[in-house]
Amino acid sequence: MPYFDAASAAPLHPVARQALLASLDEGWADPARLYREGRRARLLLDAAREAAAEAVGCRPDELVFTPSGTRAVHDGLAGALAGRRRTGRHLVVSAVEHSSVLASAAALEAAGGSFTTVPVDRAGRVAPGAYAAALRPDTALAALQSANHEVGTEQPVAEAAEECRAAGVPLLVDAAQSLAWGPVASGWSLLTASAHKWGGPSGVGLLAVRKGTRFAFQGPADERESGRAPGFPDLPAIVAAAASLRAVRQEAAEEGARLRALVERIRERVPALVPDVEVVGDPVRRLPHLVTFSCLYVDGETLLHALDRAGFSVSSGSSCTSSTLAPSHVLQAMGVLSEGNVRVSLPPGTAEEDVERFLDVLPGVVASVRQHLGAPVAPAPAARTASESGLVIDSLGKRCPIPVIELARAIGDVPVGGLVTVLSDDGAARLDIPAWCDMREQEYVGERPAERGTAYVVRRLT
Amino acid sequence: MPYFDAASAAPLHPVARQALLASLDEGWADPARLYREGRRARLLLDAAREAAAEAVGCRPDELVFTPSGTRAVHDGLAGALAGRRRTGRHLVVSAVEHSSVLASAAALEAAGGSFTTVPVDRAGRVAPGAYAAALRPDTALAALQSANHEVGTEQPVAEAAEECRAAGVPLLVDAAQSLAWGPVASGWSLLTASAHKWGGPSGVGLLAVRKGTRFAFQGPADERESGRAPGFPDLPAIVAAAASLRAVRQEAAEEGARLRALVERIRERVPALVPDVEVVGDPVRRLPHLVTFSCLYVDGETLLHALDRAGFSVSSGSSCTSSTLAPSHVLQAMGVLSEGNVRVSLPPGTAEEDVERFLDVLPGVVASVRQHLGAPVAPAPAARTASESGLVIDSLGKRCPIPVIELARAIGDVPVGGLVTVLSDDGAARLDIPAWCDMREQEYVGERPAERGTAYVVRRLT
Repeated sequence: MPYFDAASAAPLHPVARQALLASLDEGWADPARLYREGRRARLLLDAAREAAAEAVGCRPDELVFTPSGTRAVHDGLAGALAGRRRTGRHLVVSAVEHSSVLASAAALEAAGGSFTTVPVDRAGRVAPGAYAAALRPDTALAALQSANHEVGTEQPVAEAAEECRAAGVPLLVDAAQSLAWGPVASGWSLLTASAHKWGGPSGVGLLAVRKGTRFAFQGPADERESGRAPGFPDLPAIVAAAASLRAVRQEAAEEGARLRALVERIRERVPALVPDVEVVGDPVRRLPHLVTFSCLYVDGETLLHALDRAGFSVSSGSSCTSSTLAPSHVLQAMGVLSEGNVRVSLPPGTAEEDVERFLDVLPGVVASVRQHLGAPVAPAPAARTASESGLVIDSLGKRCPIPVIELARAIGDVPVGGLVTVLSDDGAARLDIPAWCDMREQEYVGERPAERGTAYVVRRLT
Repeated sequence: MPYFDAASAAPLHPVARQALLASLDEGWADPARLYREGRRARLLLDAAREAAAEAVGCRPDELVFTPSGTRAVHDGLAGALAGRRRTGRHLVVSAVEHSSVLASAAALEAAGGSFTTVPVDRAGRVAPGAYAAALRPDTALAALQSANHEVGTEQPVAEAAEECRAAGVPLLVDAAQSLAWGPVASGWSLLTASAHKWGGPSGVGLLAVRKGTRFAFQGPADERESGRAPGFPDLPAIVAAAASLRAVRQEAAEEGARLRALVERIRERVPALVPDVEVVGDPVRRLPHLVTFSCLYVDGETLLHALDRAGFSVSSGSSCTSSTLAPSHVLQAMGVLSEGNVRVSLPPGTAEEDVERFLDVLPGVVASVRQHLGAPVAPAPAARTASESGLVIDSLGKRCPIPVIELARAIGDVPVGGLVTVLSDDGAARLDIPAWCDMREQEYVGERPAERGTAYVVRRLT
């Protein structure tokens, strides 16, 4: 059964499994102890640190193991911010960072600091000079992902690092999605990563802090991991993480090229096979294994369930699959369609046949979801009122993608040049109505607050 | 080769290993995802939570999995303190808590809060009424371990909980050392534990927060584990932790009785076999598997190395084995001898023959360490000056146990009733010179600051 959500968690790499099993017997004792079991554990820990540091491109004493990528980000950002508190309490992040980075920025703000969000283009990429423009005299730290976790776009890390260096601001690079494929461009001051993204076990993150970077770990003091990662280290998992990182790197060039071609096939063929699809993310400067597209008139959760029934495990940034009812902040920042969003991220070893089968299955699945969604809407057409300003559609209380479906049904009822206003209280409408206009070559006039929800105004052009 | 340091980390229980291996294939995916791999992971996580909650004696929705016992303590204390910030920022802890609790107390103080340390008796036990006496109107939280990690003494948790309940203060119980042997007495509001102490894998801690306890997780927000433990959960380790907790509990009554008898044998025979030994900790209200004793005129590190060479892995609270050069805060709080300290903690399944062999080997090992330490001191006797106040021994710059050895050598040189003053800048002297006086029935007069270090004054009585 094909699993296409490696960007969430990759299945355990055989080398990770092997190393984990081997170190269960050798790696359970406390590496801080003097007796033989402790010394054996210490040897394993030291060797794992050397291997991981080599893959990261840093010195072993610059790298510590954390319990997860999220903890590496939380503690890395907090420690670097505290280390430069005298400079100020301002943080710069891109708009498409992982939630662990954005949650840290929010926590900084709640504690009296501030942050600036650097925008991205429609491909999800930070513009040259954007970091330089966001840095201030009181900026303590900047953060930029190496590549985006939802759309695969690679960020200009070297350029941003140079802009930060020129301003004397350290840069933290969240390399969670890219570390399997190669080291991060030099110039970073801090780097974080997560082992279960590269086929290592869960329970292991990396935090590297370059010598010379001011860092003050926040939280109760603990002697483990140079005082930067409290708690007893999960040694078997750490050993497995380091061994598998080395293994995936050895396979990276060949496997990356193979997956890149498979993803290219999906990027090209999905829009040809499925009507009204927007493939998002940078087509070239991207992770080899990841592609994301959105389907008009489809709700993400129903689509995921239908694909799951067809045997495919994928994820989605649509609002309809999230407990927060908000579409993915990444898609929002890019200004692209969020409804019917599907992220395909291929684990190493993905068979070409499975991708072909996915391409075979997808058109029918999307069509059936659309049919299913269209059916309940048809007998009860949207409440419409004609007014001097055109047609008004009351989509209040209806969830994505219904407001867009109702807009699409109504647009033919006004003359070319006429207006359609959609009243909606669903957050995804703000993203998806303009995206629909783009795709349909209609004019998105704008939004204004309504008595309830928001009024989105569209002019019929074709 | 006998490993007698289960209180640091127990070897992996066979059930833990089995569960870990089984869940590597089923438990690597993200339990928050909707597809089949995610649903399987969610089922495993839910089942593990139910099993762990049953062993703890709480509802599943009161319990979350953390990356370690230390993180459970750090985050549990911080969250409970923040939840009651309106009441105040005062914390009550016993003097013999684990370092993770004391480091949290220090962090609270550094952030503008305060804490009170409840003393213990010579057995390491908190007195009835001691918590009630320490609680203040602005006390937000109290913490007490279920049993001590260095000397095995069980604490009066039910009594302290009742004292806290009467004052309306929640009590956090650190159950890291005792959870394998049975549930904690009721009355706690928060409970923490660590899987690798009961034979589970490293990488898993427990944090239980009773419904109705105010709790505000500190740090960046994250949806995992009810918002109380950020980061991707280490599911195979969690499954193994829960399964092994259930398994050790089933074996606890029988194995506990067996180990209790072996420990009793060590408690009785070590003082008979080795001269000048103090067995510490409560002889009855104690963990079944743990015993600690200290040997006069012995340095802990040399003793550990000698025992390691003889095939025994034990730990020590002597200052000479710690990077901080301070003797264990637990022994300090108890006011007992710290030099030549040995903690024996037997893992389940410890063979009687191994304990017998330890008792065979120990006297010779201690004697040879004493001989070795005596030798370099003999040719260069301590610098002594006779003064109106008796004999003065200059032990400045000498590490534990040398100051005590020099005192013991010198006491015969003053008449009964005469004074010996030891000048020392070694922290262990403050503990070990009074402890030596107790053991030797000499009078410890007191200490005063000296030009360098501290002057410890002893009167010869016998």
